[in-house]
Amino acid sequence: MGHLLESCATTGMRRVMQHWDSVTIVGVGLIGASIGLALRERGLAKNVIGVGRRASTLRKARQHGAVTSTTTDLSRGVRDSRLILISTPVERIAPLVLEATAGCKPDAIITDAGSTKLKIVRTVEFALRSSTDRAAFVGSHPMAGGEKTGPEHGQANLFEGRVAVVTPSKQSNPEAVRQIELFWQLLGSKVVRMSPKDHDRSVAAISHMPHLIASALAAATPAEELQLASTGWMDTTRIASGDPELWRQILVQNTNGVLKSLDKFEKVLAALRRALERDDQGKILQLLQAGKQRRDSLGN
Amino acid sequence: MGHLLESCATTGMRRVMQHWDSVTIVGVGLIGASIGLALRERGLAKNVIGVGRRASTLRKARQHGAVTSTTTDLSRGVRDSRLILISTPVERIAPLVLEATAGCKPDAIITDAGSTKLKIVRTVEFALRSSTDRAAFVGSHPMAGGEKTGPEHGQANLFEGRVAVVTPSKQSNPEAVRQIELFWQLLGSKVVRMSPKDHDRSVAAISHMPHLIASALAAATPAEELQLASTGWMDTTRIASGDPELWRQILVQNTNGVLKSLDKFEKVLAALRRALERDDQGKILQLLQAGKQRRDSLGN
Repeated sequence: MGHLLESCATTGMRRVMQHWDSVTIVGVGLIGASIGLALRERGLAKNVIGVGRRASTLRKARQHGAVTSTTTDLSRGVRDSRLILISTPVERIAPLVLEATAGCKPDAIITDAGSTKLKIVRTVEFALRSSTDRAAFVGSHPMAGGEKTGPEHGQANLFEGRVAVVTPSKQSNPEAVRQIELFWQLLGSKVVRMSPKDHDRSVAAISHMPHLIASALAAATPAEELQLASTGWMDTTRIASGDPELWRQILVQNTNGVLKSLDKFEKVLAALRRALERDDQGKILQLLQAGKQRRDSLGN
Repeated sequence: MGHLLESCATTGMRRVMQHWDSVTIVGVGLIGASIGLALRERGLAKNVIGVGRRASTLRKARQHGAVTSTTTDLSRGVRDSRLILISTPVERIAPLVLEATAGCKPDAIITDAGSTKLKIVRTVEFALRSSTDRAAFVGSHPMAGGEKTGPEHGQANLFEGRVAVVTPSKQSNPEAVRQIELFWQLLGSKVVRMSPKDHDRSVAAISHMPHLIASALAAATPAEELQLASTGWMDTTRIASGDPELWRQILVQNTNGVLKSLDKFEKVLAALRRALERDDQGKILQLLQAGKQRRDSLGN
């Protein structure tokens, strides 16, 4: 099937022949619904089965065209699929992977879309350590999303041009890893392979710790000063609008990584504070230049 | 002339009759050029005279249509105007106001567009404390701008719908204050009147301290982690792209305000750190909710 992708790339064809008969998506929020829409719009799956707890959310996902059928029964939802994707809040991912493993075909492949990886991968692999013919799990994290939640905000192009991190471990089945990397590539993503540990350290720096900073900044701004808020404050605090419960779970699953990144941030901020207190204008300029240089390296 | 504005508001006319024969703008960067463009597009001034140190910048401003004539000689540039606007980096504002005062008509009104107010207003008023027939100065701060600099990025609509703070003091001439407030209203801004001290406290919280945070965050992110940067990091660090020299000046002019806001921020961040270290999940959730609530009160 890797061959299929290569030949399409060679001929410059944008449309890929159908790749999966049936894909199951457990959790049809923004990410799950966007994956369903992308699979269908790109003709990659005949059936997309949405699994969730709430009938109302499943109905929305169906109406939005993100899935072709739905069920609240996980074991029914996974039994005929060779590809299963868990896109729920991070604390539920490992239990659902294990539940899916128990109910799916032996050759099915399972991945997820969680913002943390180390705890999820370790929990799943520890639980499956003695099983031999169980489905293969490979962790993923598509670096896409937004502050809005719910299937009605799903977009087929959400993953186009974005990074998808795939986090195999020593236990991973190489063919399953290849399949999951192909999956994200077919959705338009650029795949980056990292260990679960490296992933968590990296997203702590680039996503989880910044979320903490944006939240603290928003919370620390007195309400009476908001009348002067301009685009600067709006941009800097935008991610603080994210769902607090989803972010609580992420921060708690990646506490060590977040605290280590926070150490680095606090060190730079303390240097800025010291420079201001001492009126050390050369140092202030130098620190502002360092921030600009790092930011400018990524463009707008 | 206040009557003119009222009658236009009453009849719903968008176009206002010409209001000033001649306006001088000292400093034709992004803000100065945008003011010139807005004055001309709205038919508010017949002549817009640009004053600057660099002939190349003045030429760009002229080519962009932001000014009708230019000079590098301040006293020549201000002598015929009844409205003079200083839009240079903050450290140069007070000296230029005083220089303009010495060369302009006795009934001219001078304002500025600086991001800090207390030092500027105090310096100007202290220097002019014994003069009686000198031009009136009233401080202003339009809450608009961006990371880009230079007259070529000027936009006639930059001030539309934005807040412009006008900061009279006890020494201010009430008619001059009224004129300056009218000026920003005619450019489409919503005028907020504050004391210079209140202004500086307020922008420390909403603009200067956030700039420090965004800079520290960008500088503290290891370059090797940038490959995973998504919209979250990009938004949160965007203002760190601002000109370091302009921001050094701003931070140094408002050190007390910035440090007081920084105290508040560090307190919230320390509470988040403690909650993470103790795995106090209820507290983490509560702090994230507080951030979201404050942020959501302003929309997207």
